[in-house]
Amino acid sequence: MIVVMKPGATAADIGAVIRKAESMGVKTHPIYGDNRTVVALVGDLTRVTREVFDQMDGVLHTLRIQEPYKLSSRTTRPDNTIVDIAEGKVRIGGNEVVVMAGPCSVESREQIIEIAQAVKEAGATMLRGGAFKPRTSPYDFQGLGLKGLEYLAEAREVTGLPVITEVMREEQVPMVAEYADVLQIGARNMQNYGLLQAVGRQQKPVMLKRGISGTIRELLMCAEYIVSNGNYNVMLCERGIRTYETATRNTFDLNAVPVLKESSHLPIVADPSHGTGLRELVPAMSRAAVAAGADALILEVHSDPDAAVSDGRQSLTPEDFATLMQSLRRIAAAVDRKIAAPTKEQEQASQLVAA
Amino acid sequence: MIVVMKPGATAADIGAVIRKAESMGVKTHPIYGDNRTVVALVGDLTRVTREVFDQMDGVLHTLRIQEPYKLSSRTTRPDNTIVDIAEGKVRIGGNEVVVMAGPCSVESREQIIEIAQAVKEAGATMLRGGAFKPRTSPYDFQGLGLKGLEYLAEAREVTGLPVITEVMREEQVPMVAEYADVLQIGARNMQNYGLLQAVGRQQKPVMLKRGISGTIRELLMCAEYIVSNGNYNVMLCERGIRTYETATRNTFDLNAVPVLKESSHLPIVADPSHGTGLRELVPAMSRAAVAAGADALILEVHSDPDAAVSDGRQSLTPEDFATLMQSLRRIAAAVDRKIAAPTKEQEQASQLVAA
Amino acid sequence: MIVVMKPGATAADIGAVIRKAESMGVKTHPIYGDNRTVVALVGDLTRVTREVFDQMDGVLHTLRIQEPYKLSSRTTRPDNTIVDIAEGKVRIGGNEVVVMAGPCSVESREQIIEIAQAVKEAGATMLRGGAFKPRTSPYDFQGLGLKGLEYLAEAREVTGLPVITEVMREEQVPMVAEYADVLQIGARNMQNYGLLQAVGRQQKPVMLKRGISGTIRELLMCAEYIVSNGNYNVMLCERGIRTYETATRNTFDLNAVPVLKESSHLPIVADPSHGTGLRELVPAMSRAAVAAGADALILEVHSDPDAAVSDGRQSLTPEDFATLMQSLRRIAAAVDRKIAAPTKEQEQASQLVAA
Amino acid sequence: MIVVMKPGATAADIGAVIRKAESMGVKTHPIYGDNRTVVALVGDLTRVTREVFDQMDGVLHTLRIQEPYKLSSRTTRPDNTIVDIAEGKVRIGGNEVVVMAGPCSVESREQIIEIAQAVKEAGATMLRGGAFKPRTSPYDFQGLGLKGLEYLAEAREVTGLPVITEVMREEQVPMVAEYADVLQIGARNMQNYGLLQAVGRQQKPVMLKRGISGTIRELLMCAEYIVSNGNYNVMLCERGIRTYETATRNTFDLNAVPVLKESSHLPIVADPSHGTGLRELVPAMSRAAVAAGADALILEVHSDPDAAVSDGRQSLTPEDFATLMQSLRRIAAAVDRKIAAPTKEQEQASQLVAA
Repeated sequence: MIVVMKPGATAADIGAVIRKAESMGVKTHPIYGDNRTVVALVGDLTRVTREVFDQMDGVLHTLRIQEPYKLSSRTTRPDNTIVDIAEGKVRIGGNEVVVMAGPCSVESREQIIEIAQAVKEAGATMLRGGAFKPRTSPYDFQGLGLKGLEYLAEAREVTGLPVITEVMREEQVPMVAEYADVLQIGARNMQNYGLLQAVGRQQKPVMLKRGISGTIRELLMCAEYIVSNGNYNVMLCERGIRTYETATRNTFDLNAVPVLKESSHLPIVADPSHGTGLRELVPAMSRAAVAAGADALILEVHSDPDAAVSDGRQSLTPEDFATLMQSLRRIAAAVDRKIAAPTKEQEQASQLVAA
Repeated sequence: MIVVMKPGATAADIGAVIRKAESMGVKTHPIYGDNRTVVALVGDLTRVTREVFDQMDGVLHTLRIQEPYKLSSRTTRPDNTIVDIAEGKVRIGGNEVVVMAGPCSVESREQIIEIAQAVKEAGATMLRGGAFKPRTSPYDFQGLGLKGLEYLAEAREVTGLPVITEVMREEQVPMVAEYADVLQIGARNMQNYGLLQAVGRQQKPVMLKRGISGTIRELLMCAEYIVSNGNYNVMLCERGIRTYETATRNTFDLNAVPVLKESSHLPIVADPSHGTGLRELVPAMSRAAVAAGADALILEVHSDPDAAVSDGRQSLTPEDFATLMQSLRRIAAAVDRKIAAPTKEQEQASQLVAA
Repeated sequence: MIVVMKPGATAADIGAVIRKAESMGVKTHPIYGDNRTVVALVGDLTRVTREVFDQMDGVLHTLRIQEPYKLSSRTTRPDNTIVDIAEGKVRIGGNEVVVMAGPCSVESREQIIEIAQAVKEAGATMLRGGAFKPRTSPYDFQGLGLKGLEYLAEAREVTGLPVITEVMREEQVPMVAEYADVLQIGARNMQNYGLLQAVGRQQKPVMLKRGISGTIRELLMCAEYIVSNGNYNVMLCERGIRTYETATRNTFDLNAVPVLKESSHLPIVADPSHGTGLRELVPAMSRAAVAAGADALILEVHSDPDAAVSDGRQSLTPEDFATLMQSLRRIAAAVDRKIAAPTKEQEQASQLVAA
Repeated sequence: MIVVMKPGATAADIGAVIRKAESMGVKTHPIYGDNRTVVALVGDLTRVTREVFDQMDGVLHTLRIQEPYKLSSRTTRPDNTIVDIAEGKVRIGGNEVVVMAGPCSVESREQIIEIAQAVKEAGATMLRGGAFKPRTSPYDFQGLGLKGLEYLAEAREVTGLPVITEVMREEQVPMVAEYADVLQIGARNMQNYGLLQAVGRQQKPVMLKRGISGTIRELLMCAEYIVSNGNYNVMLCERGIRTYETATRNTFDLNAVPVLKESSHLPIVADPSHGTGLRELVPAMSRAAVAAGADALILEVHSDPDAAVSDGRQSLTPEDFATLMQSLRRIAAAVDRKIAAPTKEQEQASQLVAA
């Protein structure tokens, strides 16, 4: 249930609604928008009647929410959520489209620093790279682990680019949160509810990838597992789904971008690298993603794709990435947006290092 | 097998290759490109050796083609095919992106003329509309048939817009070809080989829709059924595939656009109306399709979508369509293309009618 | 709408209902069951009210049918339909489970006669074999055509086994119907409505295969296209659907058997050869199909599977087929059915030939 | 790599092979079959040559294994694995087909004991029931947790039936392993590698469910995560996959049974309740599963399905379950197997309680 407050409702009015709801045994999530405040009630609502709230001071009206993803739903929060990363160095969900880039796996200190510098040069404002790698085979390379996190932090130091990296297990959450600016939940873990709850109980932003056969509704329900634990800094990521078609590694379902924009206030990230699995398709589908309304792109870039320990087939070279960035700026302009540029602070980080 | 001729090969050289091949019992398809001529040999090649041709006058070399879709393959013909429609009034496959628009079904004389004028006003250069409708239920509206074709021809008269409409059965091919400028093969008939052969034996251009669970490879093999019967004026159309996701009516697989561009020289049309099945998603996915490289769009527009006899849920109003056209022009410019504008002749058609 | 007649309704009562309905512009399909007669009304029912019929003599009550597949629905006809083949030589839909077997393609006179004799020896009571072959590539073997039909007829002469073979195009219907005992509509043509109507307008029994991505509901709607044209001798065939799984050629969806049994009165045939595409899986899945309630099996058998011109990978040898037949008899007994055995007449056919 | 020992190889020969491999930095898994011993080498084999082993005493030959699921592969271990449960009370993988039954969720002490007694009466030899429930919505019932485990243990005490229940999170493994006889890994967690490793490091048997879009190959790779950590007591469970078809809740992919039987030595369990999601289909598909070769069935039974807190739509009543058990005995006999009956010890457990 959603209790919608009047524009002039006071803090005391809101507090009274919250106390009343909690006395009835349900949790409350007040959401303060630019235009109005709403209080979402979650939990067992069978004995909670709307009339109780309708007559309280400062209450405009109450709504029964059909979608079971109350907190992620646009019905609850009409304004877009903007996720602040690294104390505002990067903001996702507003007018600027953010490009995150980097290798699939962190392979060495030199590799990640070199690629970080190259993607920054081309205009990326965030660095991606995997330290813990979920692999289909137990005998494949599983990532550098803690060493990988340390190298990522060093690359951030050098370039000023905030870092996004995957966390695979509940017990790793504190460690990864110490190093990363954004925690990524991978496609295989979309419905790992223990892990979702764990990242929901801390405050670093989270990027939740759609499972390889996850429906859009399930993706929103999984976001709800995070948000309902208290962390509203959630981004949703389309990364390709499993269909019968084998011409592409996955079927990058770009339709999810406008569908999610309509259903939810959370920012949408598109991952054409995993989405298609083929580097030659990444430029066209990156342009398409921006044209369709994505708030950010996450792209795999590797200095030597054919020697990459994982996913080289879908990685761009730094040169191709730089060319792509130029065309993305034109597409963004055509939909009245712009590609996010580095902040002054980030520019200085580079100059300090260069000096 | 492909026999690649030297740049300076004479007509006599080419003729000799063709006669030699035919004397060995295989069919030949000479393809005259800007830069070189190639002769594709199709049929039972088990007893045909490359050496025979390698030593003939004017022959550069021979190639064994891996893809079973020889004639549709870009390997055979590196230059894009440009399909000429209505004696060159519209050309699809070049730098200009063509927009075809109109209702799902032709419902009446007045309806089709009114919508034709509206979409022309907004900038469409071709008119779509179904006279024969394949319907899941035998008890549903099956189209106006011949009457529908006549109304389409009348709408063309009035607006100067060439007409695309579906042909469902072999025996209808001559009749539909008499009225239409482009014959559409619908998704359910992608593998109706008799129908494909029939449209391959006439010369009106054909738009072949991908089946609802057709692979990209199968789509190209079906195009091959048309082309190998002698009609090279074929366009491929992505219109959404069947997956587990139910948030959209189909999963519009935009990845098919760059995949097909790479594999084939035939023009690619995108159908975001059927692709998504939801009108609110059509603008975003139309922009994405142009950004991804589609050569044309086919869009459903209806003056009163909620009263449409079929597919109203996915039809734009003329107003929404006009707004969309403006944003498409910006996207096209961002990828160094432009949306095709009416020819002078078409402009005059309207003025004559208006006068 | 369905008008259900009372047990004691007279022919005159039924005739009056039919005339009344037709005077209102709808078509009528009287269905005479063992226990009751019902009259199905199909067409535009918007102006037809139930009250008109409710008060007529001999009418028990009227039903609005939810399923758009009225004539195929079990609601309309609670008793199983039994399809009579070759003047009753074989009956499908009753207690006996029929096994049809033979090669994918008819390759030569000798081949089809040899295999027909082998499958008959092992206990099959119908012969399958393709004369017209729908092939993904226009350059692949397309079947022997009319010659193939003649060889099939000759194999029937020799063995007494009725013949099932595919018809691909409307114009072939009379020719195939002249030679075959059952017309098969292949998976690619499930929604070729012209073809469905054509086989609906003649009286030879039809086996309709589920399309590779056909839903069960669509399969029933396609059956409706046949039945509503007047031919009730329709069998539905599950032959595997397209999913993401590649361990099998298709995903043989055996669940369709009990689902169809519940929704429809038409007999269900299972095709584990195409369903799985792998001969080593055929025995297990054939047993499973009988255990799940299939009324018939259609199996590919070839004397030299590895030399077959098509689908050898899924063909059993005659030896494996004979072994399988023995285990099928045990499974059938475990569900209180039996595998159909040759009639005396058929036995004599063989003896005459042997003599 | 697999080192195959000669029939007469001594323990010293085997020990020497193991020490040699470990000195080269790879892990060893000796597998002692009835007829021969093989030593599987796993890890980084790039510098390990077969010749080193080929010439050692007692070695027959060496094999490079193509499948990346070495330890689960039938190539490595030709004999079926038989999983011993509750000190041999139940054995899965041999000639007897085991039926596990019970409610989806443990709802109360009375509920689980009542159902346990009912399913035992009908012939089940194991009890299923969920204490920790993975739910799509964070607001749905999440299971009774530890209380649920205690009730399951009490139901086992009363009936003598070993218990299978799901473990969802790494940190729950010790607690669930204390109460349960078999740990279930649910479909959503198929690729939760941390959880797989955790159940691999303890010795209670594990039933691994196929993910809702898991391929058969991925299922085997996930089994490998468990087995390569030292726990060979693994059963694979087919429980339905996600396809485009919506007539059933999932598409129960029975083909997986013979495919897995061929590829792996691990026992196969079929779950027609989740597989189809519809109770009216469960009897037919249970019979089909036994006919196809499943080693066990897991079935949902609830005294009052319509009042069940979860999955009531797919639960059988105890009466329907008892009827089904009788028909399963007939199918099992038709494939020369039998449905496992309670041991004497289990019979006594009941009598003691009854007394």
